[in-house]
Amino acid sequence: MINRLAIIGVGLIGGSLARDLRAMGSVGEVVGYGRGLDNLRLAVELGIVDRAAVSLDDAVRDADMVVLAVPVGAIGSALAEIAPSLAEGCVVTDVGSVKGSVIAAARPALGGRFVQFVPGHPIAGTERSGVRASLAGLFRKRRVILTPEPDTDEEALDRVRAMWELTGAQVVTMSAAEHDQVLAASSHLPHVLAYALVDLFVRMDDHRKIFECAAGGFRDFTRIASSDPVLWRDICLANRDAIAVILRQYQNDLGAMIDAIENGDGRWLEETFARAKHARDRLLPNGEE
Amino acid sequence: MINRLAIIGVGLIGGSLARDLRAMGSVGEVVGYGRGLDNLRLAVELGIVDRAAVSLDDAVRDADMVVLAVPVGAIGSALAEIAPSLAEGCVVTDVGSVKGSVIAAARPALGGRFVQFVPGHPIAGTERSGVRASLAGLFRKRRVILTPEPDTDEEALDRVRAMWELTGAQVVTMSAAEHDQVLAASSHLPHVLAYALVDLFVRMDDHRKIFECAAGGFRDFTRIASSDPVLWRDICLANRDAIAVILRQYQNDLGAMIDAIENGDGRWLEETFARAKHARDRLLPNGEE
Repeated sequence: MINRLAIIGVGLIGGSLARDLRAMGSVGEVVGYGRGLDNLRLAVELGIVDRAAVSLDDAVRDADMVVLAVPVGAIGSALAEIAPSLAEGCVVTDVGSVKGSVIAAARPALGGRFVQFVPGHPIAGTERSGVRASLAGLFRKRRVILTPEPDTDEEALDRVRAMWELTGAQVVTMSAAEHDQVLAASSHLPHVLAYALVDLFVRMDDHRKIFECAAGGFRDFTRIASSDPVLWRDICLANRDAIAVILRQYQNDLGAMIDAIENGDGRWLEETFARAKHARDRLLPNGEE
Repeated sequence: MINRLAIIGVGLIGGSLARDLRAMGSVGEVVGYGRGLDNLRLAVELGIVDRAAVSLDDAVRDADMVVLAVPVGAIGSALAEIAPSLAEGCVVTDVGSVKGSVIAAARPALGGRFVQFVPGHPIAGTERSGVRASLAGLFRKRRVILTPEPDTDEEALDRVRAMWELTGAQVVTMSAAEHDQVLAASSHLPHVLAYALVDLFVRMDDHRKIFECAAGGFRDFTRIASSDPVLWRDICLANRDAIAVILRQYQNDLGAMIDAIENGDGRWLEETFARAKHARDRLLPNGEE
């Protein structure tokens, strides 16, 4: 049970978490804070938060759980700002898509309070943003990755884990380095590729025709290119090493693909396509979609 | 009105077309032919075709409309085989995803009958295949591109156009060269990129973790990697020049993306992502999804 929950950034993720915890009756009061006043007002109107705080300081005062749901690049400064106002025993967590850089910023920002900070990342979301996009049940059967450091307080970890389990999420822990490497592949790379593809088309003269001749596959493939540019800029900067490594591997693989296509190597193409289809069918079965 | 329709290849596209035309009462008899006997039997059981032909020759005899819905690489030889059996005035069309190579194969295969051949391509489909995947209404509000040659018979073109319009499709015409260039971008490139991405992951040691940590975006992005490998091998071979050109451009663009990420060029990244998001939101609005 959380007595007072502070949600910093009441958007898709923060808003959805608040919806679930309120629906379960697992939280006494929810205080929201964010830079967008209209969004914050809407969060109050929709009953997602009990009240909107006027400052970060006001938001976290007397809270026993603080969830930072702001873009990765803004987490460090937000932590530094709230550190002096955190109540004794208050647990802090975040939902950032990169964990190494968040931890690196959190250590100096929180000082002795760092042990109360549990780095987290719910693997859920859509390409939409803002509190209007928030949904009850968004985390159900989704993974939440927590990346505790060796000095992270065990009880703080347990409390954050319990909070996410209330939403129906499957909570796993791994090191921040492993998280950042895995997510560079499963999430960051596809986003960068989708942005690059749409941007390539935009710069072509006949781009209207390309979009007009797009079938469902193209729609699906490019959906993530409708994601928030600032959020993804921050992720690319925060996880630049891991993303650059896998992006280079992919670029290199495309070279082999180009060679096979230009040389008319049907056997190589069929084998590669079949291996990919087989893996996707097995690891992401359609029935679960 | 079509008296006898021959569907060569009763799969996702051929089966869906037959379903619609029968539902509209726009066809007298539908004869199906295909290499997969189980699939063909199922097409009869499901009532999608009236009867299964025992040979290509048997399938097209006395038909006034022949639709070739087989992989692009098989169209030329099928046309050569049916040419001697085509009835006077019979119109032939195909649904291949590449038009230049189909036309190049159709000219010698059909000889004097080539004028009765209307190259076509419905921009519809899913990653599934076979008659079980066929759907009524698959072509509704979808584009069908016809790429008549200068010597294509006008009446034949009108009949194929009318057939597709009965399914609710929007029929447009363009040159085969333009079709192949536009589709290389809107369809062939995304498929190749999705296959390459999944294949990159499959070859990684921790690929299970990558798939486990996949959110909806990854699912959407890689859905087309579950498409039929033979179909896409054929498309890559048949449209190799246009695909290689745009794949090289894309590979080159990724170089700029890697540079921006490695140099921490947040401004470039945000501008690029924002341009892509803006274009996609405008040209493929979510409301239509």
